[in-house]
Amino acid sequence: MGVVRLTLAYDGTGFRGWARQRDQRTVEGVLSDALSRFLGSEPRLSVAGRTDAGVHARGQVASFVWDEPLDVARLQRALNGMLAPEVVALDVRIAPEGFDARFSATAREYRYRIDTGPWPDPFEAAYVWFRPGDLALASMRAAARSLLGEHDFASFGRPHNPGGPTVRRLERLTVGRNGSRIEITARANAFLHQMVRSLVGTLVAVGEGRIAPGQVRAILQARDRGWSKGRLATPRGLTLERVVYGRRLPSTR
Amino acid sequence: MGVVRLTLAYDGTGFRGWARQRDQRTVEGVLSDALSRFLGSEPRLSVAGRTDAGVHARGQVASFVWDEPLDVARLQRALNGMLAPEVVALDVRIAPEGFDARFSATAREYRYRIDTGPWPDPFEAAYVWFRPGDLALASMRAAARSLLGEHDFASFGRPHNPGGPTVRRLERLTVGRNGSRIEITARANAFLHQMVRSLVGTLVAVGEGRIAPGQVRAILQARDRGWSKGRLATPRGLTLERVVYGRRLPSTR
Repeated sequence: MGVVRLTLAYDGTGFRGWARQRDQRTVEGVLSDALSRFLGSEPRLSVAGRTDAGVHARGQVASFVWDEPLDVARLQRALNGMLAPEVVALDVRIAPEGFDARFSATAREYRYRIDTGPWPDPFEAAYVWFRPGDLALASMRAAARSLLGEHDFASFGRPHNPGGPTVRRLERLTVGRNGSRIEITARANAFLHQMVRSLVGTLVAVGEGRIAPGQVRAILQARDRGWSKGRLATPRGLTLERVVYGRRLPSTR
Repeated sequence: MGVVRLTLAYDGTGFRGWARQRDQRTVEGVLSDALSRFLGSEPRLSVAGRTDAGVHARGQVASFVWDEPLDVARLQRALNGMLAPEVVALDVRIAPEGFDARFSATAREYRYRIDTGPWPDPFEAAYVWFRPGDLALASMRAAARSLLGEHDFASFGRPHNPGGPTVRRLERLTVGRNGSRIEITARANAFLHQMVRSLVGTLVAVGEGRIAPGQVRAILQARDRGWSKGRLATPRGLTLERVVYGRRLPSTR
């Protein structure tokens, strides 16, 4: 009984997200097809971050249970031969027994890239949100701080499983700037569906002066499932940077 | 009588190079079409670097003579509205009388990016040559130094105009490394057709130990027009970074 752990990078531009869907090209779909060509049968994949259509990854983690002998170096070469450079297996290894890419993860970290300069950069257009014009960073940072901690984030997304819980622990939400480039880093134990894009859309509205920083806490407390509508930042700016498998913190709930 | 100067960035992936060709999509072609839509008639473009198919630019410069009143800010917005983000007009201005993007340029600087790591990066695959395996940088640097100066570079390319001169002044040829990324910077008063890709292909052969660093000077001196064949580095790794309009040095010929 073994578990195979894959660390993946992918350009999400050409995919309808991670999760396999009938008649849609998805990352899970092309990866499962490649795995079954190599393995002879299709494994059932677990994944740390179910990225949306158009969202990218640099450090996605997936796993599957596999009971037969396996040369992981050959598997990695075979996968990259079939899928690179659009999807790249950065690492393939046997994980400790009981490992599961989704359930063993203690945190996910995403980064959202915004270009506020006057003109787009042809070389990064697929990976940043081009949104010309300055943003008030101090206001964005104050709003971001007011969201940290364990809260019911129902205003900022819905659970992947309908009816599931909407409480998440937001461990980090920072706003950095390098020239005309703004990067928002979000780290949580787990995220609701579209939650990072909703947080980014809300912070940008704060940075534009359309929402006061102090209002954001009230939006959180309202648990208003309609809030995110029309406030989602475009998926192309979002990348799942890494997944953390650390010691689990004792639950605070 | 005025001259309009355009500074351009473009992703060369989807183009058959700069120069207009019948039935081919080229940068000059789409830019000329966009200009003539705005201006009402098509200007004759001069360009500093006639980039090949698949070659990119961050600081290409083009110019045209225009005798009527012109709002350059409006022209820039119109061009970017039609062409960005694939082609971006970073700057549009009226140049001093007599300016010509090609003939006024005193140097061109290109950068060639190579990834020697084990797996490609999905986000840069279109802009780097993925070539796994270490290269001997000290040898490459020694070979590069032996090419500096004013020489007949017939072994490394042919003139854009058949029968034209093949002497060029290579001012800079450096090999830098950052992790698994190697960057070769080449600067000359002007380059022959495919000269940078030929220099890079030769330096990589040196870095692989297939050519001794000391042989490169002999290859230069042979003026062998067959040398470059099969040694051209792939165009996707090459970017025209900038064009210099400085004081002309007195000719040494």
